[in-house]
Order: sequence, then C-alpha cells, then structure tokens
Amino acid sequence: MPQNSIIKTAVINIKNSTTNTEYPIYIGTNLINDSKYLQNYIHPQQKVLIISNTKIMPLYGDIISASIKKLTSFFYNIVLEDGEQYKNLNSINNIYNTLLENNFDRRSVIVALGGGVVGDMAGFAAATFMRGINFIQIPTTLLAQVDSSIGGKTGVNHSLGKNMVGAFYQPKAVISDINTLKTLEKRELISGIAEIIKHAFIFDVDFIQWLENNIQSMLNLNLDIINQAIIKSCNIKKYFVTQDEKEQNIRAYLNFGHTFAHAIETATNYKTWLHGEAVGCGMAIASELSFQMGLINQQENQRILNLIQSCGLPIELPKINSQEYIKHMLKDKKNHDHNIQFILLKNLGEAIISQAPQELIHKVLCKFGAT
Amino acid sequence: MPQNSIIKTAVINIKNSTTNTEYPIYIGTNLINDSKYLQNYIHPQQKVLIISNTKIMPLYGDIISASIKKLTSFFYNIVLEDGEQYKNLNSINNIYNTLLENNFDRRSVIVALGGGVVGDMAGFAAATFMRGINFIQIPTTLLAQVDSSIGGKTGVNHSLGKNMVGAFYQPKAVISDINTLKTLEKRELISGIAEIIKHAFIFDVDFIQWLENNIQSMLNLNLDIINQAIIKSCNIKKYFVTQDEKEQNIRAYLNFGHTFAHAIETATNYKTWLHGEAVGCGMAIASELSFQMGLINQQENQRILNLIQSCGLPIELPKINSQEYIKHMLKDKKNHDHNIQFILLKNLGEAIISQAPQELIHKVLCKFGAT
Repeated sequence: MPQNSIIKTAVINIKNSTTNTEYPIYIGTNLINDSKYLQNYIHPQQKVLIISNTKIMPLYGDIISASIKKLTSFFYNIVLEDGEQYKNLNSINNIYNTLLENNFDRRSVIVALGGGVVGDMAGFAAATFMRGINFIQIPTTLLAQVDSSIGGKTGVNHSLGKNMVGAFYQPKAVISDINTLKTLEKRELISGIAEIIKHAFIFDVDFIQWLENNIQSMLNLNLDIINQAIIKSCNIKKYFVTQDEKEQNIRAYLNFGHTFAHAIETATNYKTWLHGEAVGCGMAIASELSFQMGLINQQENQRILNLIQSCGLPIELPKINSQEYIKHMLKDKKNHDHNIQFILLKNLGEAIISQAPQELIHKVLCKFGAT
Repeated sequence: MPQNSIIKTAVINIKNSTTNTEYPIYIGTNLINDSKYLQNYIHPQQKVLIISNTKIMPLYGDIISASIKKLTSFFYNIVLEDGEQYKNLNSINNIYNTLLENNFDRRSVIVALGGGVVGDMAGFAAATFMRGINFIQIPTTLLAQVDSSIGGKTGVNHSLGKNMVGAFYQPKAVISDINTLKTLEKRELISGIAEIIKHAFIFDVDFIQWLENNIQSMLNLNLDIINQAIIKSCNIKKYFVTQDEKEQNIRAYLNFGHTFAHAIETATNYKTWLHGEAVGCGMAIASELSFQMGLINQQENQRILNLIQSCGLPIELPKINSQEYIKHMLKDKKNHDHNIQFILLKNLGEAIISQAPQELIHKVLCKFGAT
C-alpha cells in the first residue's frame, strides 16, 4: 500500500476577525494537479501571475500552469532568486514591473508557489499593487504549510531588520499539497519541523509528547504522520490568528524563539541559516531564559532542548558579540517603550510576554555561543 | 474685523466600514498650535516622526514641534524633497531607514505635515512599517485638506504608472489648519480648487452653482468662503468613502477626470503639472467625452468647461501622441478585463462608470491638444 494512500483532503477555515471574512486551507495530496481548488478564485478574463523561485518553478511550474490554463488563458510567471537574502524591496519592485508591463489590474490574481520567502513577498506585492489584489498561497515547504502561509503576515526584510516592511494581508485560499514535500531538502524539512514544535511548546503539551514519539517518522518523511502534524499545527495557528488577526496581544506568542532568531538572521545577513534553524536555536535560548527567570524548571527546559536537538536543529549561535545580537533585538517589532519583549514559557504548552534583565539576556546568549 | 474671526472648528467623523472604526477630521484655524488635537494620539513614551518636505518644514515645523513636545520628548523628523516626482519607493526607503535607525516600534506614530505627496508617502510608510503603525494627517495644502488626506488612499508612483503601489490605510485623525493656506502658492491653491469642483460635478449641482458664485473669493483667499468649500467637499468625500472604503464601486466616481490626469502625469514624469492641474484638464476631457457619448448636452458640457477655466486651470494637453496617453490609461487601476473604465457625467452632479469607443477617446484627446 502506498504510504499516503489514506490521506484525505482536510479543510480548515480561517476567519479574519477585522473584516469578518474567511478563507480555506486545503491540506492533502495531488491538490495542485486539480484545478477545482483554484476555480473559485480564477475566472476566464482574469490575469494570473505565478510568483515562484528558481528551485520550485522547475519542479512544479508545469503542473500548476496546467491547472491554471483550464481556468484562464492570461497567465504569466516571475521566477525569483531562491533564499531569504533576496526577500527585499528590490525583488518586490521586480514583481511590480512584471505586473505593470503586462497591464495587470485590480481583478488580477497573484499565486505564490514556493516557501515562506516566496509567500511573504508575493503576499506583500499583492497587498500593495494597486492598493491590494487577490492572492492565493500554494506553499511547497513544510515551514510555509504549517506557519507562514497562514494568517496574512506578508513582507520583506530590511538591512536593519527582519520583516520590518510588510502588511497584514490575507490570502483568498491556501492550498497545501504535501506531495511537494517529497522534493524538499532535509534541512528545509527540519526547518519546518521547528515551527511545528514551536506550536506545541506554546500551546499543547500533549502535542509535545506526540512529537517526541513521532519525530523520527517525520524526519523519515512519513507523509501520514507529517500530514497529521500539519493539521495539528494549522489548528494551533488558527487558534491564535482568528482571535488576534493583527497581533495586538496573544498572536505574539507565535513568536516564541523568534526574537533571538531574527537577531541571528539579521546579524548574518539572512545568508547562513534557514529561518527554521534560527528559530530552533532561538527557542533553545528562550527556553533557557525562561528557566533562568524561574518560569520553568530544569527538567522542562531540558525536555524542550532535547526535542529541538532530536530534530537535528542547531543550538549553537554564530560567533558574534552578544551586544550585536542585543542591538538587533532592540529593533524587534514586539518592542515598545524602548524595551525588548520576549516570548517565554511559564509551563510546557503555555507562553507569556515578558521583559528580561539585560545581564540575563547577555548570560544566555553567551551560554549558547555568543562572544 | 480679521477675515477669519468667525471660523469655528468643524469636526467631521469618517467611519471605516471594513473595520468598524472611525476618525475625526478637524477643520479650522490655529489647530496646529494647539496640542489638544494631538493629545489623544501621542503619549509620553511614544516616538513620533514628522514627515514633511523642504517647502513646508521651514514654515510650520517649529509650530508643530512645539505642540508635539508638550506630549512626548521622543520626536524626530524627516524632510523629503518637494514634488510629485519624488513620490516613489526610494523616498519610502529613506523613511524606513530613519524609523529603524531610531528604533521606532509598533506603538510609534507618524505625522504627515504637508500636501498630498507627503500624506500619501507618510501614510504608505505607516501602513507598511512593521505591518502598520499609527499616523496622523496634517494637510497644509487645499488639495490635501479637501481630498487626499481623507479616505486612506496611500501610496507612491511607479515609473510605469501613477499611484500603482500603495495601500488603503486610514489615519487616526486629520487636522486641517486652514491658516496654512496663507502660505500656499497660487498654482497650489488652484490645484486644490480642482478637486473641490470635482466633488461638485459628480455629486451636487447646487454646489456647482455655489462655486460659480464664489470662485473669485476662493481665488482671492477669502478663508471664510474657502472654509465653507472645504467642509462641503469633505462631506461629499465622506459620502463616498464611508459607503465604499476600498473602492469596490461608487468610490471610483471620485476619480472623475483622473483617468486622463494620471496619463498626463505619467507621460510627463510627474514633473510638469501639479496633480490638480492635470485633474482640471482631465475633467474637461471627461466632460467632452460624456457629451460625445450623449450623456450630457452641450450646455452642460460648456458650463463644466467654464467653471474649470474660471479657476485658471489649464485645459490644453501637453503635445504628446494620443496613443501614448491611451497606453498609460490602459494601466489605470479602475480597468478590468483589459478595458479602460472612465468616470463620466450623465447629468450635472451625477457620475457613472463606462467604457468608451477607442476612436472617440482618440478624438477627444486630439481636441484637447494631443497629437
């Protein structure tokens, strides 16, 4: 029996609280081969731009193009360089050029085909072209399927900070075809698992245990197990984003590990680590900080560290001065009144927002390898 | 008796239909000298960035700074070059740099001090910095006070089209101090009057007559009369934007004259004409097109042309090929299904959206000076 023969397509609906609209996430196999998942959003006279990158377009461009061709004859594509270091305003401007040169209009549709970087940029271009056109997320990485394609965070990096430029802008649909994970590099798979375990750490202690039991199957690309993990993850993300679409309060918990992660990524010019790798290391540091502040005990801290390490995620920081990391953290989007706001754990499965003493931040950074 | 002694501060509240929020427009004299209009939006620990230009900052920078200093000690400013040709992503990137270099956060506030160009850019920076921070409009030109500061249209130009990049993003308040009109150049004043008469043309035949009677007083900077015109204009704009915040239907009527105007501005690289001047000429052409299509009679067409000309607005197009104008109009944001959508008049005070035959577009363009 084929490994994924029993996978049925799941549908999770996400409600946008500020506008009282909603959109579906489809999760399953062979979804991109089937135009029925797109047909509600693409009509015969509409122009469609597929935004992808040099890695994904050769793999899935023909499949998705065939599905779109059944719905409209006006479709175009733009293939961006692959990598977080290209997630900037220059790439966005290239997208605008393509849209304008081909006379796209407000009823046109952007389709993001790729991982988190492609989705963030395509979403931001859709949010800002003619003050907003429709877009559809077709995430092809685990990280994008469990996290970045959901909830409408779009944007690009700035040389002075990660994701500093962007918009909250919701897709019309998310189509997660898990067959695309078969071509994913191991490092990318692990990077996605980092966001899955993040969801468990901040919200669901039972899911932590489930992951401890199933992490090897996930690393071995057991699609049945991965499918279950994606659905669990999406439902946790749904819990936060439907209550707090624009991150006024609890949605910030989804940033567990990210304050440190963004500092790592910015300090290394987005070139060294994958986002999920930085998040893995960031969660280890945030867990240690939670322990040092008396919020969790050493056993819990160790259990978190073990799960992070069992995925193969790095836990040693690039050898950079701790003050340099802190300088970047001082630009974090969660900050206010000139203080860094950390997401910490006060139990397994429960997050809080807190400031931390400067010397403790320095201490934990050094413990994980900062100089 | 001073000319403006009887001007009382008016407050018009604008409701944002998509989010069920609202914001006030204050219209009156000596408003920027008084911190009470800002105090609901600026708190002691908040950072404030005043965005202005080289023309306005020397005139009103000290006054507004004094008012803000009473509310917070963390304030900064950025002074942009003056002119529509600087309304582009480069200027926006300069704003991002200033915000990040000074560790602005999500609770920080942007204050736009200037005309439509400053307001559009400040609003777009506010919409996209950290996915959205608060901003306040302090329009200092007539055009901004009656039109561009209201309704949340923000954005920048692209070399391939006017206002092609942007967002719908509402201010927290609009503070229109009409004393600032005393330093306005005559061309700028006339440019603002163009948007006022536009509001009359599309919505209010009585207001057309009022303007015919009062246009000379406005040109002579009678602030009492101008104040009345601003309030009438803001209420017409309110009618459209509260019903259709994101321009799905009737808000497009506010674009009367703008399809042609944007083509003029793009074709001349935003350097030759002020926006209102282009709108004036654009309305004359749109009126002629309405007449040629049998929607209004020659008497009505002439009355429109007379009011436009009595303001001193130009009605002769730059000598550019009509196909060049049409090429730019094919990128207009209102277009769909590959057709140009014009806002036309079907009576005085009543607009419609319509396509037009290609040869008629060519004919009216040539009548107004296209080659």
